[in-house]
Amino acid sequence: MKKTVKEFKISKEKNFNDWFNSVVKRSDLVDQDYGAKGFVVKKPMTMMIVETIRNMYEAEYKNTGHLPVHFPTVVPEKNFEKEKDHVEGFAPNVFWVTEAGAEGKKLEERLALKPTGETAIYPSYSKWVRSYRDLPIKYYQFGTVFRYETKATKPYMREREFLWFESHNVYETKKEMKAQIKEDLKITEKIVHQKLGVPFLYVKRPQWDKFPGADNTYVADVPLVNGHVVQIASTHELGQGFAKAFDIKFTDKNEKVKYAWQTCYGPGIARMVASLVCVHGDDKGLVLPFEVAATQIVIIPILFGKNNEKVLKKGIELKKKLKKFRTVFDNSDASPGEKYNEWELKGVPIRIEIGPREVENKELTLVRRDTKEKIKIKEKDLLIEINKLKKDILQNIKKTAEKLMESKIVTAENYKDIVKKLKEGKIVKAPFCSTDFEGEDCADKIKEDSSALVRGTALNVKDKLNKNSKCIVCGRPAKELVYIAKDY
Amino acid sequence: MKKTVKEFKISKEKNFNDWFNSVVKRSDLVDQDYGAKGFVVKKPMTMMIVETIRNMYEAEYKNTGHLPVHFPTVVPEKNFEKEKDHVEGFAPNVFWVTEAGAEGKKLEERLALKPTGETAIYPSYSKWVRSYRDLPIKYYQFGTVFRYETKATKPYMREREFLWFESHNVYETKKEMKAQIKEDLKITEKIVHQKLGVPFLYVKRPQWDKFPGADNTYVADVPLVNGHVVQIASTHELGQGFAKAFDIKFTDKNEKVKYAWQTCYGPGIARMVASLVCVHGDDKGLVLPFEVAATQIVIIPILFGKNNEKVLKKGIELKKKLKKFRTVFDNSDASPGEKYNEWELKGVPIRIEIGPREVENKELTLVRRDTKEKIKIKEKDLLIEINKLKKDILQNIKKTAEKLMESKIVTAENYKDIVKKLKEGKIVKAPFCSTDFEGEDCADKIKEDSSALVRGTALNVKDKLNKNSKCIVCGRPAKELVYIAKDY
Repeated sequence: MKKTVKEFKISKEKNFNDWFNSVVKRSDLVDQDYGAKGFVVKKPMTMMIVETIRNMYEAEYKNTGHLPVHFPTVVPEKNFEKEKDHVEGFAPNVFWVTEAGAEGKKLEERLALKPTGETAIYPSYSKWVRSYRDLPIKYYQFGTVFRYETKATKPYMREREFLWFESHNVYETKKEMKAQIKEDLKITEKIVHQKLGVPFLYVKRPQWDKFPGADNTYVADVPLVNGHVVQIASTHELGQGFAKAFDIKFTDKNEKVKYAWQTCYGPGIARMVASLVCVHGDDKGLVLPFEVAATQIVIIPILFGKNNEKVLKKGIELKKKLKKFRTVFDNSDASPGEKYNEWELKGVPIRIEIGPREVENKELTLVRRDTKEKIKIKEKDLLIEINKLKKDILQNIKKTAEKLMESKIVTAENYKDIVKKLKEGKIVKAPFCSTDFEGEDCADKIKEDSSALVRGTALNVKDKLNKNSKCIVCGRPAKELVYIAKDY
Repeated sequence: MKKTVKEFKISKEKNFNDWFNSVVKRSDLVDQDYGAKGFVVKKPMTMMIVETIRNMYEAEYKNTGHLPVHFPTVVPEKNFEKEKDHVEGFAPNVFWVTEAGAEGKKLEERLALKPTGETAIYPSYSKWVRSYRDLPIKYYQFGTVFRYETKATKPYMREREFLWFESHNVYETKKEMKAQIKEDLKITEKIVHQKLGVPFLYVKRPQWDKFPGADNTYVADVPLVNGHVVQIASTHELGQGFAKAFDIKFTDKNEKVKYAWQTCYGPGIARMVASLVCVHGDDKGLVLPFEVAATQIVIIPILFGKNNEKVLKKGIELKKKLKKFRTVFDNSDASPGEKYNEWELKGVPIRIEIGPREVENKELTLVRRDTKEKIKIKEKDLLIEINKLKKDILQNIKKTAEKLMESKIVTAENYKDIVKKLKEGKIVKAPFCSTDFEGEDCADKIKEDSSALVRGTALNVKDKLNKNSKCIVCGRPAKELVYIAKDY
């Protein structure tokens, strides 16, 4: 499956859009030319990463007492009548199945392609929950959902079908609901930050921009080099609103009938792949943490005509030795330079070069994708070295990403400064009157002048609002420090 | 989440249909009342089994060089124009997405909910395959597909949306294509027979009943106690037919342009869960192999009022000790008898009973679900005993299933005998003129008289056709020994 791959070289910092579009296409992550707008084919490069992240989530879900469930992809239209608020939020984005069979026989009822799980799941929860003994429910589903996006679609970021988990939890008390928001943050932190090396702001969204029908919405925003953010997960305190709309009630220990408290959490696995691409990539292509990379190690033989057979034999031997990793021995007919280009573009974390001299001296040359550092080692130390490198690489790219995030966040001095700093590719932090509805006008003004959004207050950053601070827009007393950024 | 569960007792042998419908419902595997005909909610009991089988398949796919891929759920209508044969087979079963948005705006082109992957995938393969260097392609996808079934729907067996893998492979040569059929059989054997303990007939289907557009179709048929079979997987030799229809060509090593050879393999994971239910279950409910059971071990405290605390403490301690297994410590307020009923119905392979005497003597009572055998052990031997039991249970239920399959297959003496033996709940083996098209009339006659199908010849059974055998229907020389059975 080898093809000649020309060197990839685009400045990520200067031309981020170009860089992203090119790297996604050239590195063989997706095929965007499927023939239906906004529907993208995820190639093995993507899906091997997706499987690893999925396994990480399934392990964390199990650790926290969640169970898998599978609701149908279609939702009967009648289910949409239950929650007006919620539905009005999603109805513009719904695809409808209306007919079936060769002659296109009309269905008795339209079926929506599920835009998100609430309308599919909560009528069942209403039947399943009777007593406090049935609670808590902590169920998750992995799969795709559908949005009739009318804006420009973009692979991973805005697709008409996208890959995610969604968990839908039901509790007896508000306290348990609140605790789930923290558990969801912990899961996100453990996987996205600690394992993928991608730092994020965990932001409480303003009231005017929360999930339709929810009490509060919390999202994980990943800052990019261009100062935009990618929302990779969201958790919602649904309060009792959906329970009232869908009639989810239980009898408590004292025989009192009560409405349940709910949360839902949607980690976007496709967007996590996107954030790996955007955050860690460099001008030569992808850079991936060892644990998630589709190919973890590539072995490249350097052939001079002399002792070729010995080198090739060694290559096969090494591949066998490294079989517990996803290892490729690239003995295609491309030149070593072409092979370097290809595997650097694809973000393979460790490259092993072997030539006749290496074979003779029982040595190997290892090259790190992240630092490009060349490391000469004794062949016998290979496994020790790989195990060391895989940790070092993650720590290094994680640190680089944390520094980027730090450098991107700046405090605005005054209103004009917001627009200026956003233009310079920064995420702006500023005192703000309120993320309750009374602050919406101020946010609208910012949006009008800069097309950026007030993302909200950050829960995982130690922010301190100075006493007597004024809102940077209206001058009223500031209740919060908010982050302002554009959506990528 | 405990509720009182009355004893389940239905004769599986005498009332198989009742038994199946009841056990699926009562054991909490599915919720059939979703509100859209043929669409079923898979509850955690099912999905935990599905995740385990999915992991087994992913491991085998990796062992055999397959890679994951993700094609969209929808297929543009134009893709259906390429392969008439194939399409005519599936068009009656297709759901169509025709509109989107709140006002139901008509889409420019209808989108089919994917009934199977060919029309979604092969246009992309046509672009991706250029040279022999691009081959082989061995890609798989896990997810759901959709069929507008008009017959009575049945959970797991005939659903309008069902869970499966499909792999779509492309080769340079016919020989490689043929070898894939054997690899698919090996994967099925390793997982379904060896790990799930479910034996099957690997049957080459007659020409008139093969997959639309394929050269040959091979299926894994699982025999049930009522003599019907469940088809749990199918593999198709697509030959070059689809390659010609979808223009999948490559330049070989000698610079010659050739059509590719293809196979596809569809293991039905939902049907595998069904076969676990049907094959291993008994009159008290489910019986499951240890490796796939949603709950593997249940610990039940026997409380007499005296030393309750010590017993409960021991229960928690044991659960911790068994944390690498899916273990439940059932300290709900139901009686021990009710708990036995519930967990036997749900097929939990091992039950641990602890009362005050056990705690005092540092002993435990283990009860096997498959044999109901009670085993007294020293507490310190617990892990050794569990590890031994999990193998014994699988071997025992596998052997029982093999014996059942053996006892179900009988040879018919003459034509009348076929109908008689089918009525007695047997699978009939008989000499048959031909599974090429010339035998279709004979198969039609059998179907008319018994509503059973000529399934085909078995590849994984040592069958020997006697010399000079005559077709049991028409009396012409018999070319094959075929299996005749009803579809469940």
